[in-house]
Amino acid sequence: MYLEKINSPEDLKKLTIDKLDIVAKEVREFLIDSVSKTGGHLSSNLGVVDLTIAMHYCFSSPKDKFVWDVGHQAYTHKILTGRKGDFSTLRKLDGMSGFPKVSESKYDAFNAGHSSTSIAASIGLAKARDLNKENYNVVSVIGDGAMTGGLAYEALNNVGRDKTKLIIILNDNQMSISENVGAMSKYLGGLSLNQKYRTAKTGVKKGLSHIPVFGNVFYKFLYKGKGTIKNAIMKENSMFEHLGIKYVGPIDGHDIKRLVKVFNNAKKLDEPVIIHIKTIKGKGYELAEKSPSKYHGVSSFNSKVGIQPKVNAKKTYSDVFGDKIVELAKKNSKICAITAAMPTGTGLTKFKKEFKDRFFDVGIAEEYAVTFAAGLAKGGLKPVFAVYSTFLQRSYDQIVHDVCIQKLPVIFAIDRAGIVGDDGETHQGIYDLSFLSHIPNLTVLAPKNRFELEKMIEFAINFDGPIAIRYPRGEASEVMGAVNGDIELGKSEYIYKGEDIALVSYGAMMDECSGVYYKLIEKGYNPTIINARFASPIDMDMVDDLIKNYKYIFTLEDNIYSGGFGALLSQRLCEKGVSGKVVHNFAFPDTYIEHGLRKLLFDRYGMSAEKISEKILDILEKKNV
Amino acid sequence: MYLEKINSPEDLKKLTIDKLDIVAKEVREFLIDSVSKTGGHLSSNLGVVDLTIAMHYCFSSPKDKFVWDVGHQAYTHKILTGRKGDFSTLRKLDGMSGFPKVSESKYDAFNAGHSSTSIAASIGLAKARDLNKENYNVVSVIGDGAMTGGLAYEALNNVGRDKTKLIIILNDNQMSISENVGAMSKYLGGLSLNQKYRTAKTGVKKGLSHIPVFGNVFYKFLYKGKGTIKNAIMKENSMFEHLGIKYVGPIDGHDIKRLVKVFNNAKKLDEPVIIHIKTIKGKGYELAEKSPSKYHGVSSFNSKVGIQPKVNAKKTYSDVFGDKIVELAKKNSKICAITAAMPTGTGLTKFKKEFKDRFFDVGIAEEYAVTFAAGLAKGGLKPVFAVYSTFLQRSYDQIVHDVCIQKLPVIFAIDRAGIVGDDGETHQGIYDLSFLSHIPNLTVLAPKNRFELEKMIEFAINFDGPIAIRYPRGEASEVMGAVNGDIELGKSEYIYKGEDIALVSYGAMMDECSGVYYKLIEKGYNPTIINARFASPIDMDMVDDLIKNYKYIFTLEDNIYSGGFGALLSQRLCEKGVSGKVVHNFAFPDTYIEHGLRKLLFDRYGMSAEKISEKILDILEKKNV
Repeated sequence: MYLEKINSPEDLKKLTIDKLDIVAKEVREFLIDSVSKTGGHLSSNLGVVDLTIAMHYCFSSPKDKFVWDVGHQAYTHKILTGRKGDFSTLRKLDGMSGFPKVSESKYDAFNAGHSSTSIAASIGLAKARDLNKENYNVVSVIGDGAMTGGLAYEALNNVGRDKTKLIIILNDNQMSISENVGAMSKYLGGLSLNQKYRTAKTGVKKGLSHIPVFGNVFYKFLYKGKGTIKNAIMKENSMFEHLGIKYVGPIDGHDIKRLVKVFNNAKKLDEPVIIHIKTIKGKGYELAEKSPSKYHGVSSFNSKVGIQPKVNAKKTYSDVFGDKIVELAKKNSKICAITAAMPTGTGLTKFKKEFKDRFFDVGIAEEYAVTFAAGLAKGGLKPVFAVYSTFLQRSYDQIVHDVCIQKLPVIFAIDRAGIVGDDGETHQGIYDLSFLSHIPNLTVLAPKNRFELEKMIEFAINFDGPIAIRYPRGEASEVMGAVNGDIELGKSEYIYKGEDIALVSYGAMMDECSGVYYKLIEKGYNPTIINARFASPIDMDMVDDLIKNYKYIFTLEDNIYSGGFGALLSQRLCEKGVSGKVVHNFAFPDTYIEHGLRKLLFDRYGMSAEKISEKILDILEKKNV
Repeated sequence: MYLEKINSPEDLKKLTIDKLDIVAKEVREFLIDSVSKTGGHLSSNLGVVDLTIAMHYCFSSPKDKFVWDVGHQAYTHKILTGRKGDFSTLRKLDGMSGFPKVSESKYDAFNAGHSSTSIAASIGLAKARDLNKENYNVVSVIGDGAMTGGLAYEALNNVGRDKTKLIIILNDNQMSISENVGAMSKYLGGLSLNQKYRTAKTGVKKGLSHIPVFGNVFYKFLYKGKGTIKNAIMKENSMFEHLGIKYVGPIDGHDIKRLVKVFNNAKKLDEPVIIHIKTIKGKGYELAEKSPSKYHGVSSFNSKVGIQPKVNAKKTYSDVFGDKIVELAKKNSKICAITAAMPTGTGLTKFKKEFKDRFFDVGIAEEYAVTFAAGLAKGGLKPVFAVYSTFLQRSYDQIVHDVCIQKLPVIFAIDRAGIVGDDGETHQGIYDLSFLSHIPNLTVLAPKNRFELEKMIEFAINFDGPIAIRYPRGEASEVMGAVNGDIELGKSEYIYKGEDIALVSYGAMMDECSGVYYKLIEKGYNPTIINARFASPIDMDMVDDLIKNYKYIFTLEDNIYSGGFGALLSQRLCEKGVSGKVVHNFAFPDTYIEHGLRKLLFDRYGMSAEKISEKILDILEKKNV
């Protein structure tokens, strides 16, 4: 029972090194127990328990800065820095974030959520330290998956330039490495960081003037695996070394004593070093070790029996998309699907299985995904890039420069648009209407329910130009039922024709809009409901109708206020003249929205049917309709 | 006089190989003569004359697809594909583009302008070819500079996966390579592509089960140079080979016969190959060879005497920024400057010289630049990222995720905002207000003239949060003269107080706005001129004043219509109620604007003082003020 006495890294340091394995065991028990109750990221966190303990044992956070890439592996870090008691509130509204967050703790040096940022941010911190003539360690922890992102490479290309002191821990939990190599690297791990030895070796290398004869003996490690960059980096570690970065590894990431030794040596270096460690995702929880992906991000479950299959689970929007695209691809051999390391999340599992040749998982590389899609489209295919709204932020330039200037028929299937809930600030999909709807030549649409999503996917496949369909996380709505008629470019759908009051709803906001409608009906009003469908192009016939026939115009969208659907519609209303009208855009405020249940966030930000109705009634009653 | 008879690649192919050097000489003479008259990109084009001739001699464009990275090196390609006669119109309005453009010629396979896209697009084209069961070559040409961009790496990480046939020509014009290596590589260049030999070699490698003993002899090339990724790639070419991509090189890129031989061999391969060639920028024009950067992008000059120093040249906005930031950095040691391979263009030459330690050229890596800046800011410094508007498109996610969520005080000095002119569609800076102004926590402002730019830079340095200042290409305006008083957050400036008519001008549009003002005065109107200064936050006091006191509200901005300053202002006007008013946003239409002189484009798109006045007078007169 060491863990209960650890409320800060100082408490950890009071223990002798032989106790750390016990602490690790206790942390794992705590994690399994706690995360199985609250939900959260499990496999990735179990994998880095030993690493994190070793880091806090050797370094002195918060003086030393830990920069966690992606950030969903920082739970042990949170436990050891006084936040164990907050785990019952993990990812709950006003509770503890699932990611490192500067505003949450002095021990969190840099926010994360998206992938591949840690080395870049760490170089910045390290340079600032040097220019400020301060003295501390900057340690970034980056997974092998995050190494497929271009930003990580841009950073590697800069890190070695001027030998800034920096420790990069490459947490490798995917590639198989033979026992042999592991043993050799263990030997080297201690050896090559021994300062005296290192100096001697440098001398030898200099003497041999770049001919890596001596290097061959010490640097060469052979890996199994396919020919990807990840392998290229590791094989013979040539890339790191040539970049001017010392390389150590691979090291068993569950051997705390070894890690402590290596870190203590690494602290003494005055230049960048990459420490390559091997960890097992889900380590210490058998079920997670066997199925690390299944236990990556979990809802609450019984830790004794593990995650059970859902009974009668309703289809999510991702499922609807996934099924529909498979159906269409059977008839149309030009359809291809692309994912950036999210085949399951985006609903492409079936497509992957059925159309192996036409399925492309490009790694965490959203920029590449889009330019690659542009090439496919130019070559006569129909590429569909299925991607989370928040990650598409990475591709803004490629959408403009490679797809839209050339009007190439690339389809963006934008999942997790709107509020995503648990993951919070870094992952909310409430910016896409603002960063997409103004892009020339890009058509942007959104369905009100699952039936309309299917129709829109058909529309997109038949459309000759760049097109983006956005839909939210979770269960697919059936609000308003089946869709009659076809989707027409730039045409909205009038659902109920009333008078004076127009409720113009965008996409999934129809769930709330229908509630608003009934509240207004209850109060004796007779509003019109319009399902806008298109954020670009804006339906100008609708604009004319709104101006001609309505006194109150309310737009509803699960995007921020500025630059979204309401903004574009208002601009056109304003231009056409909106005398004597009340126009109000219901949208999330121009800010970053914290984590919490979707429902609670909608309520907090005045975006629930109830809150919207209240506001509308206030407006209507003040105005005496 | 062979060139005059070449109007298509077929004409070139009629010549015997020994005539190609003469063609190259003629092309160079033509280029020097023509570009010195029209202006354009010179050094990069002179460097690839021989390469391009060899490509067209060996491959069959348009069936075979050439994908030029960045694209400012495609002049010889244009000459050989029937566009020699168009060079007098190079980069002129309605004339020939300076970049490959699908809409211009069937020989242009993919548009370019921004860097590092070619491999990604080529993989897409090659995959499409294979899935369509077609048979042609895809050849991308990428410079060593473009290899510093993350997108190029993401593509390399994908290219080797499934052995798609693809030829990547790495045009290396920067690194010095010893004579020795050159000779060896020449030998290898022919040798390793010989099919019989290649097969044998593969056999040997397999036999040795990945131990690169045999490989050592053939693959190892020693380069001079610093430890950057560029070097890492080339040294021992380990990266390419480990990625599953055959590597050949380096080869003298001015030896047409050798190139022809290599390309003819490369065509026979059924897998990806990287052909590494060495070229000299400016080759064949002594002045350009000596100063390749000076002759990179040129205005017209006398080719006999070369580019002469400008006499009494007026300061550009870049100069004003550059001088001011140096002045401030002398007093404030926290100020750092970052550029993505554009130290001269962004006006940072002096800063680079005076504050070596605080200056960072990160290569063509805009994503990294921003996340790195976030790290510097978190570490207590004041980073200024000076960047062209169009290239900042690459950093949208990093601005949101790494800078703005954490409210880090990074300063974006956005040069080339608005219409840039000669470079056309891919380079216009008319989207930044739309992709930046909605970002929560980001302050966006723009100066009306050089004096205000100086004040705004001071304001930004003292501001505690993310902030972006945008200003156009070219000579710094002095319209309206010196600035009285300080810049206040979110406050616009009233320049002339009139009545009924408000001209709300954003940033550099004041040049046109002042012209509009005088036209209106001439006609007997008495408009108010407001210098908006901030696109975010919008000045709500101004909004209230506009609603209270004006009947006609005209906004002016050198951005597209949707999502920019006018859109955000209109949304707020609309929300507050704009009864009985006329609101009109003068902006560029939601499209991609072609190349041409700034002045001509302003006129064509109704954005000149004259056109705007006409439109305003039409509105006023119809309405009978």
